[in-house]
Amino acid sequence: MTESLFDPRTVAVVGASDDPAKWGYWLARGALSGASRRPVHLVNARGADVLGHATHRSLRDLPETLDLVAIATPPHTYEQVVGDALDAGARHLVAITAGVVYPGGLPALAERVRSAGARLVGPTSMGVYDSAAGLALTWGTLTPGPIGVVSQSGSVGLELGYLAAKEGLGLSRFVSVGAAADLGVRELAEAVVAAPHTRVLVLYLEDLSIGRDLIALAGGKPVILLTVGGSAAGRRAVTSHTGALATPDAVVDALCRAAGVMRARTPQEAIHIAQACLAVSTPVRRIAVVADSGGQGAIAAELAERLGLEVPAFTPATVEALAALLPPDAGLSNPVDLAGAGEADLATYPKITEIVAPEVDAVVLTGYFASYAADSPALEGAEQAAAAHLARTLTTRPCLIHTMRPEGPTVDFLRAAGIPVHGTIDAVMTGLSALTSPREVRPPVPRSPAPPGDVSGFTALRRTLMAAGVAFPDGRLYDGGDPGLSYPLVLKALGPAHKTELGGVVLGIGTPEDLHREAARMRERLAGPPLWVEEQLTTPGTELIVGAHRDPHAGPVVTFGAGGVLAELVADTVTALAPLTHEQAKELIGRTRVARLLNGWRGAPPADVDAVAHVMVVLGDILEARPELTEIEVNPLKDGVALDAYAS
Amino acid sequence: MTESLFDPRTVAVVGASDDPAKWGYWLARGALSGASRRPVHLVNARGADVLGHATHRSLRDLPETLDLVAIATPPHTYEQVVGDALDAGARHLVAITAGVVYPGGLPALAERVRSAGARLVGPTSMGVYDSAAGLALTWGTLTPGPIGVVSQSGSVGLELGYLAAKEGLGLSRFVSVGAAADLGVRELAEAVVAAPHTRVLVLYLEDLSIGRDLIALAGGKPVILLTVGGSAAGRRAVTSHTGALATPDAVVDALCRAAGVMRARTPQEAIHIAQACLAVSTPVRRIAVVADSGGQGAIAAELAERLGLEVPAFTPATVEALAALLPPDAGLSNPVDLAGAGEADLATYPKITEIVAPEVDAVVLTGYFASYAADSPALEGAEQAAAAHLARTLTTRPCLIHTMRPEGPTVDFLRAAGIPVHGTIDAVMTGLSALTSPREVRPPVPRSPAPPGDVSGFTALRRTLMAAGVAFPDGRLYDGGDPGLSYPLVLKALGPAHKTELGGVVLGIGTPEDLHREAARMRERLAGPPLWVEEQLTTPGTELIVGAHRDPHAGPVVTFGAGGVLAELVADTVTALAPLTHEQAKELIGRTRVARLLNGWRGAPPADVDAVAHVMVVLGDILEARPELTEIEVNPLKDGVALDAYAS
Repeated sequence: MTESLFDPRTVAVVGASDDPAKWGYWLARGALSGASRRPVHLVNARGADVLGHATHRSLRDLPETLDLVAIATPPHTYEQVVGDALDAGARHLVAITAGVVYPGGLPALAERVRSAGARLVGPTSMGVYDSAAGLALTWGTLTPGPIGVVSQSGSVGLELGYLAAKEGLGLSRFVSVGAAADLGVRELAEAVVAAPHTRVLVLYLEDLSIGRDLIALAGGKPVILLTVGGSAAGRRAVTSHTGALATPDAVVDALCRAAGVMRARTPQEAIHIAQACLAVSTPVRRIAVVADSGGQGAIAAELAERLGLEVPAFTPATVEALAALLPPDAGLSNPVDLAGAGEADLATYPKITEIVAPEVDAVVLTGYFASYAADSPALEGAEQAAAAHLARTLTTRPCLIHTMRPEGPTVDFLRAAGIPVHGTIDAVMTGLSALTSPREVRPPVPRSPAPPGDVSGFTALRRTLMAAGVAFPDGRLYDGGDPGLSYPLVLKALGPAHKTELGGVVLGIGTPEDLHREAARMRERLAGPPLWVEEQLTTPGTELIVGAHRDPHAGPVVTFGAGGVLAELVADTVTALAPLTHEQAKELIGRTRVARLLNGWRGAPPADVDAVAHVMVVLGDILEARPELTEIEVNPLKDGVALDAYAS
Repeated sequence: MTESLFDPRTVAVVGASDDPAKWGYWLARGALSGASRRPVHLVNARGADVLGHATHRSLRDLPETLDLVAIATPPHTYEQVVGDALDAGARHLVAITAGVVYPGGLPALAERVRSAGARLVGPTSMGVYDSAAGLALTWGTLTPGPIGVVSQSGSVGLELGYLAAKEGLGLSRFVSVGAAADLGVRELAEAVVAAPHTRVLVLYLEDLSIGRDLIALAGGKPVILLTVGGSAAGRRAVTSHTGALATPDAVVDALCRAAGVMRARTPQEAIHIAQACLAVSTPVRRIAVVADSGGQGAIAAELAERLGLEVPAFTPATVEALAALLPPDAGLSNPVDLAGAGEADLATYPKITEIVAPEVDAVVLTGYFASYAADSPALEGAEQAAAAHLARTLTTRPCLIHTMRPEGPTVDFLRAAGIPVHGTIDAVMTGLSALTSPREVRPPVPRSPAPPGDVSGFTALRRTLMAAGVAFPDGRLYDGGDPGLSYPLVLKALGPAHKTELGGVVLGIGTPEDLHREAARMRERLAGPPLWVEEQLTTPGTELIVGAHRDPHAGPVVTFGAGGVLAELVADTVTALAPLTHEQAKELIGRTRVARLLNGWRGAPPADVDAVAHVMVVLGDILEARPELTEIEVNPLKDGVALDAYAS
């Protein structure tokens, strides 16, 4: 039913105005731009003409049943206007007005709307837009195009629209979610992504309450997520602005990875990524760079590698083929430096592109190509022919262009042919670097049977984890007698005092006498907690951390990373949605740098990656199966052995 | 004398053409645009009219003494044209032609030019430009402005010019260095930076042969360096393009830090940094973000923190002052969310800016301000008044603006008032983030007396370093007798076989018998090298590396960083020009992450940072004083003790 939001039978604007500094002006102007598609009714409390059109003083005066009503009247008029709209049969209300005054607040407003069989966007929305349906109920003027935008900030949404237009793109549908009294991100995003003219979706979200619904949403078309909350100032801003809790960056990454969603950091980045998605439907890791100038080629190649793309050297056969076409001082490696051969004969550009394309996932042209005709109209024919040739090579590999002057006939031709043209190399590479991972939605993991057993307290948790295949050092509760373990031993106080900082752990106990003495001291120090004694691991393995916790939006997630000193020096952890398969856990381990230490680094024996992966799977399964738990952790994990564990 | 290059008394263009696809057209067109300033002579081999002007068939036909001659004729004409130009008294030649044919090659060409008392730019130059002198000898049309550009790639130089123009800026002087047969980067850069209308210099360099001359060059105005060679593809490109060796990235950083030069990665970044330099003359670390939209403020603040800027929370007094002006749902933290108060009254923007400015180094406005008048002409007066108010607050702190539509009257007004206005928040923050370090040139270090003594071979080097105050474990040459040292010991084979990988080092020797046995084994294994025995350090310190090496361009540099396992996991080193003062060495140590481990991390005793700094100073001094050495290294350095050393 959200379809009718974007293509209503009739539109009424309440609060229509002739003053371009007011929302009522832009809503009226936009509504009237679609007047050939549907009846438009303007309501102005004084009945004054707006934009040369007669107005009604009230929704009650309208001659026909309403469909969509956009409201930009003052907060205290709200109850009356909503009542009138629903009485007149409105199916959708778009509430621009901020700080609406409504008895019972937003929940009561939403209830009133829904009980009348209608739905509400907003309040504090900055409108809706559909280029195919000719619906433009927002500030300013948006440009039609293939990008769908759903935004929790109207301004960010409009900025995305303006930036898209600057790059020769535009929007399919736009909706500013606003305070979401009724319709929320999920429902609106579903409607925007489902539209046939939406080819890529950009979401700006300040809270990730959409959670795992993001996975279903992103099942088809490419989705780009712009979000904030990863930095101190970002969290402060999100909390003060929406009252929402920011989702930790690692969890957002985990959610995006599971959903095959690409992340952008700014609106400009989001548009660059969207443009790359529109031109390239397969993952891109290896690219070729072709330039007529050595400098521009070098800058492009270097930026690409910094952003995680590969610029591989070419095979001898390709180098030979290039040498046959290019002058002696050309650069036949990757980047290719045409050394003036491009300028001398514009056909060189597509010829070289054809030669190098089979070696890579995408070809980037950087420099002057596409600007020749803009400077020298005499070159228009030759440049257009070269561009047409280039467009034909698209059947083998995608091609993207950075040109020094992104305007003029060749640029228009190339963009129409599906070849993105940017004014900076930064734009091209930012876009491509978002495409290095396959846009795969993670296949659902069959829920593993959760290990049975108690997890409250260390000894129960240890028993349960051991039963699930997690190794612990041999140990037992210390009762004052001979523990029957191999020295050296570790003595731990159990319970809340179980902390290194409080002296609740003593390592390296070498003799029964030492054990007896340390136990006495610890009991005295910590007021008699139960004590645990276990064998001390003396191998020089790397300390790891494996944990799982429940995110309010994303649900159970598993985190793996370096522990101990390394954890302090390198932020070297990775987080993923639980539950995990064993293979997924191993793939995650491989994403960290500490993985290199587990793989037999510098001749050391390889650590048991399978044991680590198993711990990750088990902790995820436990959290998944036991909603009463918030977190569970093995820390440190060394040589596949859990040296401590904790759950709460 | 390079002054006359940029403001010649006369200009002659050889190879002038009427075909806009040819260099001769653009040179003639540019030269004629300055015809009101100086006589312009066009030379065309066929004597055809060019751009409606009569031409000469040869330089020999010209009526007066020449000053600057720009040459765009074919390679084989070169000897003749250069001879004619010098015979006619030319003082500067600008050689556009690539692949010139000249007996004896480029060195002979340069010698011929200089012996006639003239100088040459190029060949393979893409021209020179001076906005104040009305000299425009290059392709296309450059825009006048405050940025000087010196480029080893003509295309990159022109791209910088186009990007500057897009941001409402332009160039003061531009010179494309080309093959630099005669005039090189240093001389041309000096001329460009010295021009009174140059306020900031952008250099694009593919080789860093300018070396430490960069320090003198950057002594006055801000300098931005764009260079390549830090990645595999970048190095491949540089070598194939110019034949030059790329300078390692860490050395470029060291040179830039010493010279107070800012680094850019792309032309676009260089222009953003230049724009920030023009608006802000002091270091910027703490910024305030002001937005009318919570979303745009959050995105800006988050990007700022990611790029190394601080977005600090405000003091209670400031929060109170903001609360008095803003609506209840506003965000009074930093970022400030005006929550519609900006739109309701444009004067809110400068008022809030004034309030927050004293808390920070710079204020960033992001969102709609500066675009209101573009959308609603009725708001032009109010927006202009707010902009004027904002310009007045510049006396306290600089202010930079991101606006959604960077066009229209307010944008022009703000730019004229020295307030940069960008179309993306990315541009603002990229520029500001380059200003976090003071643009200080490093004061010259008085050369320390280099430690005397031999450094050839381990024992001599060890003696010399010990005399200079570097600690080594107690040790001696092993002669088969009792070494008189405390066990455990380390046994090392000296000479080329002195390598862990070859079994030339045995650790943990616990008894005289073990020592005897291991020595016999090692002699057998390695064919009887001299052996060294020393006490083994058993404390659990962090392994560090200190080294110095001679860079072909930058001279002696010192590198400090994490060693051992850490070195493999985190690229955690820092490099600086030698010689170093003790304080500079300590400051460098503080730039690494491993420094945290030296400062008594997690309750461990703090390592001797002074001892580490001393090793850095000594190694730098030795390399500085002994030109015959290429490198010298202490690796590992643990707890201030050198466990091994090497020089060559």
